[in-house]
Amino acid sequence: MRATVFRAAGDVRIETVPDAAIRAPSDALVRVTHAFVCGSDLWFYRGEAKAWRAGWRCGHEFLGIVEDVGPDVRTVGRGDRVIAPFVYSDGTCEFCLRGLQTSCPHGDAFGGANNDGGQGEAVRVPYADATLVALPSDIANDEAVLERVLPLSDVMGTGHHAALAAGVGPGKTVAVIGDGAVGLCAILAARRLGAERVLAFGRHPSRAAVARRFGAAEIVAERGPEAVARALELTGGGPHAVLECVGNEGSMAMATGMVRPGGAVGFVGVPYGAAKGINLRRMFEHNFALRGGLAPVRAYLPELLADVLAGRLDPSPVFDLRVGLDGVPQAYAAMNERTAIKALVAL
Amino acid sequence: MRATVFRAAGDVRIETVPDAAIRAPSDALVRVTHAFVCGSDLWFYRGEAKAWRAGWRCGHEFLGIVEDVGPDVRTVGRGDRVIAPFVYSDGTCEFCLRGLQTSCPHGDAFGGANNDGGQGEAVRVPYADATLVALPSDIANDEAVLERVLPLSDVMGTGHHAALAAGVGPGKTVAVIGDGAVGLCAILAARRLGAERVLAFGRHPSRAAVARRFGAAEIVAERGPEAVARALELTGGGPHAVLECVGNEGSMAMATGMVRPGGAVGFVGVPYGAAKGINLRRMFEHNFALRGGLAPVRAYLPELLADVLAGRLDPSPVFDLRVGLDGVPQAYAAMNERTAIKALVAL
Repeated sequence: MRATVFRAAGDVRIETVPDAAIRAPSDALVRVTHAFVCGSDLWFYRGEAKAWRAGWRCGHEFLGIVEDVGPDVRTVGRGDRVIAPFVYSDGTCEFCLRGLQTSCPHGDAFGGANNDGGQGEAVRVPYADATLVALPSDIANDEAVLERVLPLSDVMGTGHHAALAAGVGPGKTVAVIGDGAVGLCAILAARRLGAERVLAFGRHPSRAAVARRFGAAEIVAERGPEAVARALELTGGGPHAVLECVGNEGSMAMATGMVRPGGAVGFVGVPYGAAKGINLRRMFEHNFALRGGLAPVRAYLPELLADVLAGRLDPSPVFDLRVGLDGVPQAYAAMNERTAIKALVAL
Repeated sequence: MRATVFRAAGDVRIETVPDAAIRAPSDALVRVTHAFVCGSDLWFYRGEAKAWRAGWRCGHEFLGIVEDVGPDVRTVGRGDRVIAPFVYSDGTCEFCLRGLQTSCPHGDAFGGANNDGGQGEAVRVPYADATLVALPSDIANDEAVLERVLPLSDVMGTGHHAALAAGVGPGKTVAVIGDGAVGLCAILAARRLGAERVLAFGRHPSRAAVARRFGAAEIVAERGPEAVARALELTGGGPHAVLECVGNEGSMAMATGMVRPGGAVGFVGVPYGAAKGINLRRMFEHNFALRGGLAPVRAYLPELLADVLAGRLDPSPVFDLRVGLDGVPQAYAAMNERTAIKALVAL
């Protein structure tokens, strides 16, 4: 089969790889129909994820159709249209039972050294019963609905996680740092959870347009200490919740510099240098929390899917580029150059 | 009057200073009867609190008797035995009303450049109505009870804050890092909140004895990565809650290295280098929270005082040295050399 393979910084290729196949009784084999390129893929694309090696598979956000299942699989069957979270999990461990599937000791992200990636023709899905969610048959071929569902595989669930981690709720003033797809979804998630007012930080016009569409009341163009000063001024002492959706030193310094005393920073940006940005002295003096991390999107899928199917939630404006499998390398380049927010791969 | 004054690293002295006096209508003048030397005083004593200047006043934990009050003071009066939290606060701001008195914009800690310190003959207490808590008259001269109450001015409330920040509750396994008075009080607080099992980290025999008396099930003598490995082994994957009561790089690395996925680190050690110890990558991968800080002990005083008065709570074993005012310099030296856990100053 053909799949996206990492070769070196700035170099991902479509190559012929061994066919995905059932290997364990709880596996499903899924033919991919839709995938995304993720902002977090840019970490290895830029050479910043040092552990990444040539030959590793790419992509962890996908929808597809079940082609085959192992003998133990009960909840999905051949022909079902399914969505996968970006991490598979066994569904039975202490952490899965508590809704923290990303800490499952038998789980792992799709792609990488050991797993098929979503940016390819097919994927072996371990623990299919616990991992996959089947879509209702009446929307299984509705392209517009499928495009609204696909972001639930990662970015929408991750934005929701940031909002939960930061304690967003009715009446709260919220700041969202990061205007990538996760940051934009975080705005949508915050509004969905009742946030009264959302400030979005960014200066890119097309992203700001999506931010406003998703419910941001203000777009703040300042960066760094100026952004902190502006946030404190606009909110009379800081937003109650800050959703950190970047993961670098500057974004973490902004988040921990502006959040209101007693509030919380929800961080979901994969941390590359972010630790250096933590203003621990201010955390200590003003008792705000720092929490978040890899989002257990599997836990959120049923709830968010229900909202999408009911027409109450549409995160699909986060993608603004559509390619076929052969266009994946160009999609990485476009996202890296910020000429695209997010690319959908239609197979 | 006579009071403890910081002169230089390793040098605190009893000096004659201007008499404490009412300066605002909401002030009270309190004659100090009991004070503590705090583990956090050792930061300036050791020269690590770089902002400290010669001439600053020392001490922020005290009990006393009200000698005079300004015309606006309603809740305490002359002759009342009162306890002060280590930070005064106005009682009316957004943060005071939410129980986060340590973020009051009109508040400050006792001692330092601008306020009388607890380790002296008298203290001007701003916002006396909001700050002070009067003790019932029937125990106002009961020395044994007063010694149980005094730790509520800081260390017991701070240990309680660590436990709340880390989400301690029934059934939880808890690790306490730090065998100073705050760490010991954190053990007591965790057990009071229903913790099933408390692991205490330390190797000092007399402190370990207090830890056991306060309810620690196990004392772990290992440090650093060995302590993390031991904690993971003893708890099958990490304690649900870790109470970080030191504030340096090593203690923070231990805390963020061992806490169970989905759990929380409650940090109350004044951070000197602790930011470098935060394992943010593990926080991200395993979604545990970091929260805590300067404890709003004023918020906890009524609840903890009720337990002390009812005989359900006795943190007084945390002090093991008693001095008069002239003995304060020796008390600092003893705590710095770890020959004393905590010193009580009886005036």
